[in-house]
Amino acid sequence: MNAPLPSHLLPEIAQRDTPTALIDALKAHFSERCSTAMVVREQHGRDESSFAVPPPAAVVFAESTADVALAVSLADRYSVPVIPFGVGTSLEGHLLAVQGGISIDVSRMNRVLQVNAEDLTVTVQPGVTRKQLNEEIKSTGLFFPIDPGADATLGGMSATRASGTNAVRYGTMRENVLALEVVTADGSVIRTGTRAKKSSAGYDLTRLMVGSEGTLGVITEVTVRLYPLPEAISAAICSFPSIEAAVRTTIEIIQLGVPIARVELIDHNAVRMVNAHSKLGLREEPMLLMEFHGSPSSVKEQAELVQELASGHGGNAFEWASTPEERTRLWTARHNAYFAAIQSRPGCRAISTDTCVPISRLADCLLESVAEVDASGIPYFLVGHVGDGNFHFGYLIDPDIPAEREVAEALNHKLVSRALALEGTCTGEHGVGLHKMDFLVTEAGAGAVQMMRTIKQALDPKNIMNPGKIFSM
Amino acid sequence: MNAPLPSHLLPEIAQRDTPTALIDALKAHFSERCSTAMVVREQHGRDESSFAVPPPAAVVFAESTADVALAVSLADRYSVPVIPFGVGTSLEGHLLAVQGGISIDVSRMNRVLQVNAEDLTVTVQPGVTRKQLNEEIKSTGLFFPIDPGADATLGGMSATRASGTNAVRYGTMRENVLALEVVTADGSVIRTGTRAKKSSAGYDLTRLMVGSEGTLGVITEVTVRLYPLPEAISAAICSFPSIEAAVRTTIEIIQLGVPIARVELIDHNAVRMVNAHSKLGLREEPMLLMEFHGSPSSVKEQAELVQELASGHGGNAFEWASTPEERTRLWTARHNAYFAAIQSRPGCRAISTDTCVPISRLADCLLESVAEVDASGIPYFLVGHVGDGNFHFGYLIDPDIPAEREVAEALNHKLVSRALALEGTCTGEHGVGLHKMDFLVTEAGAGAVQMMRTIKQALDPKNIMNPGKIFSM
Repeated sequence: MNAPLPSHLLPEIAQRDTPTALIDALKAHFSERCSTAMVVREQHGRDESSFAVPPPAAVVFAESTADVALAVSLADRYSVPVIPFGVGTSLEGHLLAVQGGISIDVSRMNRVLQVNAEDLTVTVQPGVTRKQLNEEIKSTGLFFPIDPGADATLGGMSATRASGTNAVRYGTMRENVLALEVVTADGSVIRTGTRAKKSSAGYDLTRLMVGSEGTLGVITEVTVRLYPLPEAISAAICSFPSIEAAVRTTIEIIQLGVPIARVELIDHNAVRMVNAHSKLGLREEPMLLMEFHGSPSSVKEQAELVQELASGHGGNAFEWASTPEERTRLWTARHNAYFAAIQSRPGCRAISTDTCVPISRLADCLLESVAEVDASGIPYFLVGHVGDGNFHFGYLIDPDIPAEREVAEALNHKLVSRALALEGTCTGEHGVGLHKMDFLVTEAGAGAVQMMRTIKQALDPKNIMNPGKIFSM
Repeated sequence: MNAPLPSHLLPEIAQRDTPTALIDALKAHFSERCSTAMVVREQHGRDESSFAVPPPAAVVFAESTADVALAVSLADRYSVPVIPFGVGTSLEGHLLAVQGGISIDVSRMNRVLQVNAEDLTVTVQPGVTRKQLNEEIKSTGLFFPIDPGADATLGGMSATRASGTNAVRYGTMRENVLALEVVTADGSVIRTGTRAKKSSAGYDLTRLMVGSEGTLGVITEVTVRLYPLPEAISAAICSFPSIEAAVRTTIEIIQLGVPIARVELIDHNAVRMVNAHSKLGLREEPMLLMEFHGSPSSVKEQAELVQELASGHGGNAFEWASTPEERTRLWTARHNAYFAAIQSRPGCRAISTDTCVPISRLADCLLESVAEVDASGIPYFLVGHVGDGNFHFGYLIDPDIPAEREVAEALNHKLVSRALALEGTCTGEHGVGLHKMDFLVTEAGAGAVQMMRTIKQALDPKNIMNPGKIFSM
């Protein structure tokens, strides 16, 4: 059972009417590609967050930019909210129709439009998922590194400024989106940026859109950077006597400037859940999963240095995953940690935290929070893109026991307060959505949030683009 | 003699009155730190661009964020333009008081506020220059890589989204600014971002401000990323039989993913000018100046691979600059190329181009443009951050001969059209300012420029923040 929205979010819930005339106009144009079937609406009215909100009034399955532009124009005419939908893997309630309106499903816009291997760029439609993209460009010798846990779409990843396990070396969507095509609130189409690697040509509309969570427009094309597949790749697992030892090792890796491609913390709970889910047989201790990219000699150099640092903190000898198959198995297990955890407690929901702090503050932030959650008795797991100072607790609550949710929310509150005091952020990669609107005000300050609101008002005067997310209007 | 503004920019010239009451209020607060002396005003009313525009009515020397906030509040009260000033090295007319108003000089706000070596970040006041910063953090073993030719301020570099010779490896100000403090158009102070390496917390106000050229606010603090000084650094010079050979070598270096730190093209004209200016005795042929960063073995590996690629295009054996002193001498000469060129033709002004194209289009874009300028008879030099697809022609015109300016502008026009047709940008790093307003519309499209304008209107309703730049209102 999903929970009702917390009371402080109730002002955002102002279900607007969706006039029959709009639905009729959508059906006239899209025929069976505009659905009002309850099962379709419900499927588009939820995500991985845990709130119960009525579904959108209709779902439009767009197949082109022109489709999106038409649907938005009609929504604009009737002042009805528009919520872009990719594959529904948001963790923060981005997809919930808190003010009613229509969902625009772009999952059928899933073509890779233009591979420019010689420029290390690719342009895709927003419904292309990260795995699909890497599959389709395999023959070029290039890859796209950004990998949130789920097989999310490039449109959704752009909208939430997603990252993942490779961000420590390759950056996030912020660094890797070169240009976008966007349908704005009045249904017109703009392009932000070119395929040039850098530019000083006016306001950075690309990065304004990246992370705007659908509140400024619907992304209809994405141009991203690609990278040559490294000549050599090695993945290693290293177990540690404590989370602290793993974290201190990570801090030293980063501070020494080792160009490590991935360095992921998994606590003993998460290892246990992943073992049960993916039959990995890993030692159930805190561990770092690491990957090294480069020339054979550079990979060897990096690995030796990191092994030395790990040993200094009591880390065991590396276990190597050297074949591509072993590596895929390992990283798939890591990416499935969230789903493995959900299955470890039948019927549970995960409340996922997402703080990110400067690397020197990581131990302080993480260890105090581990002590707090251990004391609370709530089942949890901990995974982290610790090379970036970003980590996720998943509090596994029984949604039928309100007290559990309260305890989890209180833990998250304390964690966020700690992260902000340590010059960090409440969200490293999941976005604000519904869940972190209060945290955003604390983090950014009322003035900065007011600036965001002013931009939103100017670009979307009817407040139809995914309203009620990021900040209240 | 500077030229009058081109006629298409005349609508931007609407010198507003600066009421005596504002000057009196500024003098009452800032006393001798508010100057109306003509010599001071003129010094703040020009930059490296070549337009003649009346100077600002007054110059305020700010020493704190509170000073900036007060000056902007007063300007807001009287609806008078505000132009932030660092050290005056803009090439695009950013600093010209085309609508009158006051210049806020932040060069005295030049303290390094907070070095967080363990997090690879530093927070500085906006008047700190890039050389000063590197000097002050020398003992930490870290460095700040962004290096436009001039010794610009971090505030100005943020405002123009600057880059330079290291951007091919380390990115531009876009990638390296983590957070800003900004005084907005009504005189209030906001912070954008935290010291966390990544964040999905709402709109990316940091990157909206980076590159906004003073039109959205005055930057009063800058937090940037630092990098560990590489264990090994080697710099090499390689001469080529033609510009094409040098460019084709560069394209292969980038496409193979060599993590080269710098790869700069200098044509035979620029070499001749740099030789005359810095007494370098370089062979007067097109050449690449390169630098490799990494572990000793990685640097050796990179250099060997690049030497092999260069040889394939007729490049000579590398000449090495291996001591820090030799390297500094080489890169100083490169950074002084612009000033060396200016001195090569007494009394001349340089009209500097700044196109940037995807690397696969670099040869097409560059070689046709070289042929055009050779045919024109205008003296010129060519330097380029070619690893990024960005290069600069400097057309050295006699400002007293209008025909020369016309020829130069026509050459630039053709070059920009070519770059845009090749999916590039009119400005890789200098910004739009006054000079490229028309190009921006062609590049971004009327819809995207209208979006920029809408944001500007919303955040600066009185149009007092560096008005008449980037786009017309």
